[in-house]
Amino acid sequence: MAFRQLHLNAFLMTVGHHEAAWRLPESDPFAHVDVRHYIELAQIAERGKLDSLFLADSPVLWNSVGRRPAGGLEPTVLLAALATATSRIGLIATASTTYNEPYNIARRFASIDHISGGRAGWNVVTTAQLDAARNFNLASLPSHRDRYERAAEFIDVTRKLWDSWEDDAPVGDKEAGVWGDDAKLHPPGHSGRFFQVAGALDVPRSPQGHPLLVQAGSSADGKELAARHADAVFTAQQTLAEAQEFYADLKRRALTEGRDPEAIKILPGIVPAIGATEKEAKDLEEELDRLIKPEYALKQLADTLHLSPADLHLDRPLPADLPPEAEIEGAKSRYTLIVDLARRENLTVRQLIGRLGGGRGHRTFAGTPEQVADAIQHWFENGAADGFNIMAPVLPSGLERFVDQVVPILQQRGLFRTGYTGSTLREHYGLARPAAVLEGA
Amino acid sequence: MAFRQLHLNAFLMTVGHHEAAWRLPESDPFAHVDVRHYIELAQIAERGKLDSLFLADSPVLWNSVGRRPAGGLEPTVLLAALATATSRIGLIATASTTYNEPYNIARRFASIDHISGGRAGWNVVTTAQLDAARNFNLASLPSHRDRYERAAEFIDVTRKLWDSWEDDAPVGDKEAGVWGDDAKLHPPGHSGRFFQVAGALDVPRSPQGHPLLVQAGSSADGKELAARHADAVFTAQQTLAEAQEFYADLKRRALTEGRDPEAIKILPGIVPAIGATEKEAKDLEEELDRLIKPEYALKQLADTLHLSPADLHLDRPLPADLPPEAEIEGAKSRYTLIVDLARRENLTVRQLIGRLGGGRGHRTFAGTPEQVADAIQHWFENGAADGFNIMAPVLPSGLERFVDQVVPILQQRGLFRTGYTGSTLREHYGLARPAAVLEGA
Repeated sequence: MAFRQLHLNAFLMTVGHHEAAWRLPESDPFAHVDVRHYIELAQIAERGKLDSLFLADSPVLWNSVGRRPAGGLEPTVLLAALATATSRIGLIATASTTYNEPYNIARRFASIDHISGGRAGWNVVTTAQLDAARNFNLASLPSHRDRYERAAEFIDVTRKLWDSWEDDAPVGDKEAGVWGDDAKLHPPGHSGRFFQVAGALDVPRSPQGHPLLVQAGSSADGKELAARHADAVFTAQQTLAEAQEFYADLKRRALTEGRDPEAIKILPGIVPAIGATEKEAKDLEEELDRLIKPEYALKQLADTLHLSPADLHLDRPLPADLPPEAEIEGAKSRYTLIVDLARRENLTVRQLIGRLGGGRGHRTFAGTPEQVADAIQHWFENGAADGFNIMAPVLPSGLERFVDQVVPILQQRGLFRTGYTGSTLREHYGLARPAAVLEGA
Repeated sequence: MAFRQLHLNAFLMTVGHHEAAWRLPESDPFAHVDVRHYIELAQIAERGKLDSLFLADSPVLWNSVGRRPAGGLEPTVLLAALATATSRIGLIATASTTYNEPYNIARRFASIDHISGGRAGWNVVTTAQLDAARNFNLASLPSHRDRYERAAEFIDVTRKLWDSWEDDAPVGDKEAGVWGDDAKLHPPGHSGRFFQVAGALDVPRSPQGHPLLVQAGSSADGKELAARHADAVFTAQQTLAEAQEFYADLKRRALTEGRDPEAIKILPGIVPAIGATEKEAKDLEEELDRLIKPEYALKQLADTLHLSPADLHLDRPLPADLPPEAEIEGAKSRYTLIVDLARRENLTVRQLIGRLGGGRGHRTFAGTPEQVADAIQHWFENGAADGFNIMAPVLPSGLERFVDQVVPILQQRGLFRTGYTGSTLREHYGLARPAAVLEGA
């Protein structure tokens, strides 16, 4: 394993990333509230020696539950349940910095890190939906800038809390009757624009010191946050050129922040439809696209573009006069990605809906296991990726195919581990365990 | 099983409820951050057919970590980990209404209810410590009255969220491409003094409808909250007379609120030191008391009584001029219990510290398995309890003794189940599954 190695994450979502996956005969439409479904997926991913699995999240229910499996299991408690059903794979869950408090989040992830023996990761999101704000006492969405400033301070406080116990603060001296050393506690005493947090965390320092920090926003503010703080970045990139540009930009930003560019791992998403032949793969993709009901998708596309559904016509291109990204308060980078994709490939709204239904802006790819491995290797070896975020269109079958058919090819090519060599998520990603930065020291 | 049956809850805390338990040769002083310890305890309790297990919580680290095992695993994520390691026992965790948002709490407990197949319970606390407030952007502790008003509204919103999906809102009609029925969603649209929560929960209605609600504050406000909302109440009662008075008062209050008094189960705590002979039990109790270091306990007692440690003398009774409960902003009922215990038994501060170190105000009892069973039966049959909150002084050994030696006696006497008859926590406690109260219906 002397060569540079790929990092692979399994992004788990209901019965698959394709919005119509639940309509396939093989799918259980209620699996997304059944922990056994997620345990099965986690164990498949671990069998494939993947670095980690990942759960997305927004604390909000979409407008309609007609379209596809809605609601689900809150990711931090689901992650804890998966921790005891697995032993090696990393476990990453999303939590919002806009609708939580740092003390609660620091506790939960430090606790999951203990429970999993050092396998926890936190995907930091600022939560772009107005409807989420309205579940948390707010009448309007805080501005993009405010959400990112709060996120930066939130991460700062969370790290102070994770460092508020030195590793050897617990002593356990039964004879002397001294359990811990108070001199090795460092309460943050934090007082900032958004947060005042006085005391030390009520969790001893965890196996990884800091659970892995993941970031997935690709706006300018998102990239800035990632460059400063993230250990890993999930990103949606449609073309090699775009992915290369994003990769180089983020590594350069990390360097500017005084960080080793190797210490930030960049994983574009890929939605692989895998078949024994190329035709079989494309047939699966077409079957799924055929099962999309355009009326739901049209409404969502209109919302994302800040339009009304009446502004969109299924068999015409997007309207010409869309506002620039700077005027968008929601998910900025997703907005631009969708507009660029439609314009670049001159897609009708119907075609665009098909592409988005397959991967919500992530790159879709239909092919044989060899072709999928080639696609991964090509980006990996051409400055576009440190690894991939695997978004199976159908779950569990799509993840099983990836693990059983694509992973062995990547292993044969010397690109991917044949067994876990570390025991923590940081070790899987080749990242050091951070030493505690001591407040008041 | 025609007779009235006991309900038994295992209150799990580090390596035991006695503050010096960690100093015994058998104890692992770091077990409280090891999920395997809690899995072992949960499985022991389940072997004993106990109704439930329970995890306490405050989002704060005590002033000193010298005294005993400090910090721990956040209870909601720990509960989820225990859900997959057990199959029948109920799972209750504490969460604060003062330092959380209803949408987050409703989601987590509904998710745990799904993950556990209907075994989740939430112990509602308002969190009395100033040091907790200072971890959540506050300079001072909100008043007792404000905390309880917020708690009442918090529970109201949480129930609206749990009822925001009708049970049959998920449809899963693959053929028609309709996953759920939007007409069966009921967004709370709640706007109150403390909370504005617009949308439906992003978790389908859970197996129990509402996870069990537990309450453990015994102040007037606490009893009022319990009478209105609680399915089960944990309480600290030192004498039969006090326990009878509390029991009758709470059942009466429930009736006044228009509830069936049978629908609120009252479980006093008991800290049983169990030995093959009475002498063996008392020796264990004495060994534990001998291991208490009074300097820590003196500080804590002084804090609870709103005094300085210098006001207390180990070999004298409490000062005569303590303030009445009405002037206390913290844990009111705990304050009164401690003062009453010291005065009633004319204890010196040193003796009082021994009693509190064993059970933090809960009833301690040393005896043979027969004697412990007698003590339980006596209160159960004399209007003082619907069951007991079992607080083993040492864990796991104290819980093992209770399960293997006391439970069989209670079973032989026809007082306790010999096997689980239901599959949900509500069924264990003999409580109905609540129908959804529909907003806007």
